[in-house]
This record gives sequence, structure tokens and C-alpha cells, in this order.
Amino acid sequence: MHDLPGSRLADYRATHFQYLVQDRVATITLDRPERKNPLTFDSYAELRDLFRALAYAADVKAVVITGAGDNFCSGGDVHEIIGPLTRLDMPGLLAFTRMTGDLVKAMRACPQPIVAAVDGVCAGAGAILALSSDIRYGTARSKTAFLFTRVGLAGCDMGACALLPRVIGQGRAAELLYTGRVLTGEEAERWGFFNRLCEPQAVLSEAQAFAALLANGPTFAHGMTKKMLQQEWNMGVDEAIEAEAQAQAICMATRDFHRAYEAFVAKDQPRFEGN
Amino acid sequence: MHDLPGSRLADYRATHFQYLVQDRVATITLDRPERKNPLTFDSYAELRDLFRALAYAADVKAVVITGAGDNFCSGGDVHEIIGPLTRLDMPGLLAFTRMTGDLVKAMRACPQPIVAAVDGVCAGAGAILALSSDIRYGTARSKTAFLFTRVGLAGCDMGACALLPRVIGQGRAAELLYTGRVLTGEEAERWGFFNRLCEPQAVLSEAQAFAALLANGPTFAHGMTKKMLQQEWNMGVDEAIEAEAQAQAICMATRDFHRAYEAFVAKDQPRFEGN
Amino acid sequence: MHDLPGSRLADYRATHFQYLVQDRVATITLDRPERKNPLTFDSYAELRDLFRALAYAADVKAVVITGAGDNFCSGGDVHEIIGPLTRLDMPGLLAFTRMTGDLVKAMRACPQPIVAAVDGVCAGAGAILALSSDIRYGTARSKTAFLFTRVGLAGCDMGACALLPRVIGQGRAAELLYTGRVLTGEEAERWGFFNRLCEPQAVLSEAQAFAALLANGPTFAHGMTKKMLQQEWNMGVDEAIEAEAQAQAICMATRDFHRAYEAFVAKDQPRFEGN
Repeated sequence: MHDLPGSRLADYRATHFQYLVQDRVATITLDRPERKNPLTFDSYAELRDLFRALAYAADVKAVVITGAGDNFCSGGDVHEIIGPLTRLDMPGLLAFTRMTGDLVKAMRACPQPIVAAVDGVCAGAGAILALSSDIRYGTARSKTAFLFTRVGLAGCDMGACALLPRVIGQGRAAELLYTGRVLTGEEAERWGFFNRLCEPQAVLSEAQAFAALLANGPTFAHGMTKKMLQQEWNMGVDEAIEAEAQAQAICMATRDFHRAYEAFVAKDQPRFEGN
Repeated sequence: MHDLPGSRLADYRATHFQYLVQDRVATITLDRPERKNPLTFDSYAELRDLFRALAYAADVKAVVITGAGDNFCSGGDVHEIIGPLTRLDMPGLLAFTRMTGDLVKAMRACPQPIVAAVDGVCAGAGAILALSSDIRYGTARSKTAFLFTRVGLAGCDMGACALLPRVIGQGRAAELLYTGRVLTGEEAERWGFFNRLCEPQAVLSEAQAFAALLANGPTFAHGMTKKMLQQEWNMGVDEAIEAEAQAQAICMATRDFHRAYEAFVAKDQPRFEGN
Repeated sequence: MHDLPGSRLADYRATHFQYLVQDRVATITLDRPERKNPLTFDSYAELRDLFRALAYAADVKAVVITGAGDNFCSGGDVHEIIGPLTRLDMPGLLAFTRMTGDLVKAMRACPQPIVAAVDGVCAGAGAILALSSDIRYGTARSKTAFLFTRVGLAGCDMGACALLPRVIGQGRAAELLYTGRVLTGEEAERWGFFNRLCEPQAVLSEAQAFAALLANGPTFAHGMTKKMLQQEWNMGVDEAIEAEAQAQAICMATRDFHRAYEAFVAKDQPRFEGN
């Protein structure tokens, strides 16, 4: 694939979390397990910058996001984030909420599908990281909580009031956002928040296997699927259909489409190259 | 809380339904149990005016809506509403449909979360009252039916074609709206219409307990959650994220946010005051 | 019903599929069972033209779409569609994707509710035909797959990225569109894709019975329900409520509404005539 403007991110060395690329699948591991992997100003900013850079990376085709030590992410750290926020003025507060929102925008804008592997605590901004992913694998014992209300805030954090109702329905989303209560693993699967429940020891490897499957597929087309799921969010049906006519015509001009046809005729499996 | 423009509604005396405020939770009870609590021109109008006034009330923080005598609401009364409607001219018909729509607009616009406690018959405009609430508690024996089609009308009544698909999905909503068939309690829970199934004798008290929980929470933030769930309905994802950055920055400037942080540091429970 | 501009389609003779109208219910049967009923350029075009014509037909009140020989539809034929597409230039590709999109637009725009009766293979564009219907009856053994990705294309085909998330939720839709995996009958019912699971030998007759029920109902109002479900897709809540106030006022001016009231007063069943 011609990677102009192209950046290479397979060898990126992260500062505030673990980052490892294997077979074009990047695994991001939040890793302060002794605190259940909280986010900090620094990790927010680095995640935002990384996902922004991924939009131009040719050597990473799917992303897995997970947490170390049996927990996904406990959200914004009380001492490192909430405390300082109570001392900020309004421009400072808005700069913070915009930074966290920019992380979600970057996750939704990069062409790589993002698979969240969720075990244990998945709370606050951590729950948003899962929600902002494309696919979510979880465990029965996981505890997802949009607990902004517990710190006196609104449920509208980082896009939750837009994203969550589309995933689990408006009534269930309202309950979770008003109460901050724990969504159990079983409920999360039943409601369509988790795509699959896995055993705790397998959730990461299954998420990585799923990501590898996507990374070995027609990745240009996957990026178009992701873009259009985002783009058509707020279109009328007819406009969405025209937008897809254009987007799919672009994909029909790719070599991956031809490869699939040729493989079919040869009774073979297609080998996609993402172009 | 400074309640300018502020009105006080804890002592409001309703004419066409029961209305009682306890611990800042208002309970509205439709109470013509011998007719399964139908709506009339008068009760529609009073409900609309009450919900509009609640937008400015400082002494009511959550609302429960229910029906007397084991039924929620049978909808527009055949003799008192449908009969007269058949004799109206077009401006008169539109005045009626706009009035009923204004009730839903007012329910969605007031900052208080609304919890519906649904038992027995929940039909027609009664089903819309439940749908227009934020949270719905039901019973297994409840019968919810969007039965407009049974009187020769369309399913698009008081916002149903917009609201119902977001709660239970487009395919299921289409079936209910085309047929007017009864949605059983179990289905309603499974589909996300009801947030919880309760025993008939407990559904009102559980709804009130839930409303009390919300009323004792950060109510300014709850109002923002409700506002943004409404506001972001028709935004693109990026615009919704910016809208939430602003909305949450406002909430971070409230004292409730500080109270929560201070309680956390003191290893205490926060006492929210809604400001 | 005054059928100006009106066309009569009860006696239409289809060329590329079976078409039979009985009691104002049209049944479209894709019928190349030896190939699992693939679509071709010709059948796409005839389906598009038929659904466009149905918008003006007074003698067809509901539509059932199904496939012959235990399968629904295998989608675009590899040899007759995918092969030729690989040899088209960009204007040719766009002409094709617009034609297929126009079929979905026509299905969503005609006033007749469309009921899909799905057994066996329901793949690619076949899955879109089911998705574009208003109601879906399926079987446990049916296999629905949005398998565009398997031929190197994106999931955004004929409106799928807009329609599917509204039916089954954003997370589940993303998984199906990224992977092209089979959605089993049980999952499809659980997720709200199928409205009902039927026995294979009964799925068509049950779908026809459901369509007949609708065809004997207030069909003018049904057309308005369908129109508003489409129209309000991309409106704010308040705008949708006003739109429904107007739409329902129109329906209150129909004779079907009066018929229903008069039947109720006479303790009789209303006989609707669609006007």
C-alpha cells in the first residue's frame, strides 16, 4: 500500500501505557494495575495523539485496547485528575473536557477497527474508552460503570449521551447514565454492549485474534465501513444510501475486490492487501 | 439553590389527576380507575402545563407518573376525546395533536428525570406517556399497546415514530406501531422498554425509591444529562462530543462536583445539593 | 379509494421473479432456487421499478418478499454481477451502486409495509432486501450474512451502515458488517432483526397472514406510519413531534378514523377501507 502521507507506528514507543504491534495489530495496555489503570492528563494526551497518528499509519491495521492485571481502566484518577480539576477556571475546564473528547474523536476517526478487551473494572472514562471502540469483548465478572454522576457530574461525558443510546437503546442508556450503576458482564452481552463474553484468561487473546482477522481482511474497505458508520450517523436514509453508493463504488475500484473475485473463480481463498 | 426564575410546585394542587410531592419527588397519579385512567382534553392540558412549570421549579427534583387501581392509563377516552375529534375541522384537529405533542415536548424538556410506574393497561396515549418518561418500571402482567392503528390512525402519534425506535430498535418499533398489539411485560423488559420488572404491589414504591435516589443526587447534573440526551439526538458524533465538552465543563464548575471530591478525600459520602 | 395518479399492479406480470397478488397482498418470490435465488442486473432493475410503481398502486396494500426452495436470496451473483463489476470504470461502478441503492430507496418510499419471509441463505444484497423490509419473519435455520467484506468490499452497501445499527444496535451492527459472519436465526430474533421465528414450512404463510392483517387495516394510516418512520429518522425530537402532529391530524380527517369510532360506539369491528 502506498502510504503517503503515511507514518510508521509499528515501532512506536509509548510513554504512559504499553504499546506493542504484532502482525499489524497494535495492542494498547493501560498499565498501572495497582490503581486499576487510571487515566491521567498525560495518558489522555498520549492516547489522543497516538490515535490521531494512526489515521496516517500504513503498518497498523487494527487496534486492541486493554488493561493490565485483571482490570480494564478505572477512569480519571481522583487525585491526579479530579483534584486538579476542582482548582481550574472555566477555560481550563473546557480545555480538559475538549482534550478527553478529542480522544474519542480520534478513536472514531482512525480507519483501524478498535477492539476493547474488558475485564474487571471498566469505569468512568474507562467505560468511554470501551464505548468508543468498534467491538467490545468482555468477561462475566467485568463491571462497567458510567459513574460520572457519582462525582457530581452529568452523564454527558466524551460523547456518552450520543454513543451509548445507539449501542444499547435510549432507555437502558438513560438508566446507566443517571445512576452510574454497574453493568454486569451478562447484561452487557444481552444488551449488545459486549459483542462476546470470554473467560478472563482468554479475553485479550480472543480480542487480538479478532483484530488479526480484521487486519488480514480488506483493510481499506474496513476503514470505509468505519468511516461510513460514523458519517451516516446523522443523515437521512436516502442521503445515507447515496453516500454508500459513492463509498462502495470507491471500494469496487480497489484491487482487493478484484483479488476476491479472482480467488473465487480459482476456488481459492483471497489474500487481501488493503489496497 | 437559587431558584430564579423559580416556581414552587411542592404544594401544587392538581385538578384532573392526583399530585403529591414527598421529599422533592412528585408523584402524578392518573386516577379514574373505573375507566382505567383515560386522558381527557383537560388532563392533557393540565399535564402539559405542569411539566412546563416543572422546568422552573426548584423544589421538585424527580417525577413519578403512574395510574390508580392496577392500570397505568388507557389513553384518550373514546367518548370524551375520539368522539369529539370526529367532529372537528382541520385546524381543530391540528390544535389537538399539537397539544398532545406539547405534553411530550414538556416531559422531554423539564430537567427532572421522569420515572413511569406501569402496571396493567398502558395503551395509546398512555403508552406514549410511558415512552416519554426517562425510566420505565413495569410489571409482568402489564400490557403496553401503541394502539392508534386500531382506531384507524397512524403510529406516528406524539413522537412515537421518533422515540420508540431509539428505545427498542427500528424493527420491533415498526411491528408495534403497525399492529397496535400488546407488548407483554417480559418482552418489554427484554427489549429495553422497561428498565425493570417489579411485583405489581411494589412497582410504584420501587419507582419512587429510584426517583428519590435521583432526587438526592447531583440534580443539576441530572438535568444536564437529560438535556444532552435530548439535544444530541440529531447531531453528528463530533458535534455531540463538543457539546458534551461544554456541558460537562459547566457541571465541573458546580459545587456538587467539589462536594464529591471533598467527600472522597475525606472517605465520606457526598451530600449533593443540586448546585 | 380514489387512485389518482393510481396504477394497477394486481395483474402485473414479472419477468425476473415471481409476483402474485392475492387479496391485495403482493408476494414477490425470488426464484432461481438452484442458485439460492441470486440477484442479477435485471432483477435489481425490475425490483426497483416495481417498488417505485407500488407508490402509486391502489390495488396492492402490503408486500411479502421471499425466496423459492428454502433459501431467501444469495445476493449479487458472482458470475453475473461481481465478474462484470470488476471490468467497469468508475462511472459504471457508481451507476451500479446507485441502482442497488435506488432499490432500497424505493422499498422505503412505497407506502405498503413490506414483510420479508426469510429461510435458509440470506446473504449480501439478499440480507439488505430483508433489512430494507419493514418486518422480518425468519427461521431458526436461516443464515443472514452481510458478507460484502468477504469480496473485499466495505459494509456500507445499499444503506447498511445507516439501517442496521437502528435495528440491532451499533455494536452488533459493526461486528456483522466488519466480519460478514452468519447471524443465526436465534440471534436474529434475540437482537430484533427478526420480528418472529417460524417453522420453515410456515414462514411464508405466516408472513402472508401478517401482511393480510395489515392490508385489511387502515392502509392510508399504515402508509403514514411508514413515511414518518423514514421521515423522522434524522429530525430532532421536537421537530419530529410537530411532524407527527401534522401527519396524525391528516389521518384524523380520514373516513377510516370515523369508521373506527362508529364501530366502537356500535360495539362492532371496524371495516377499514384505506381512505
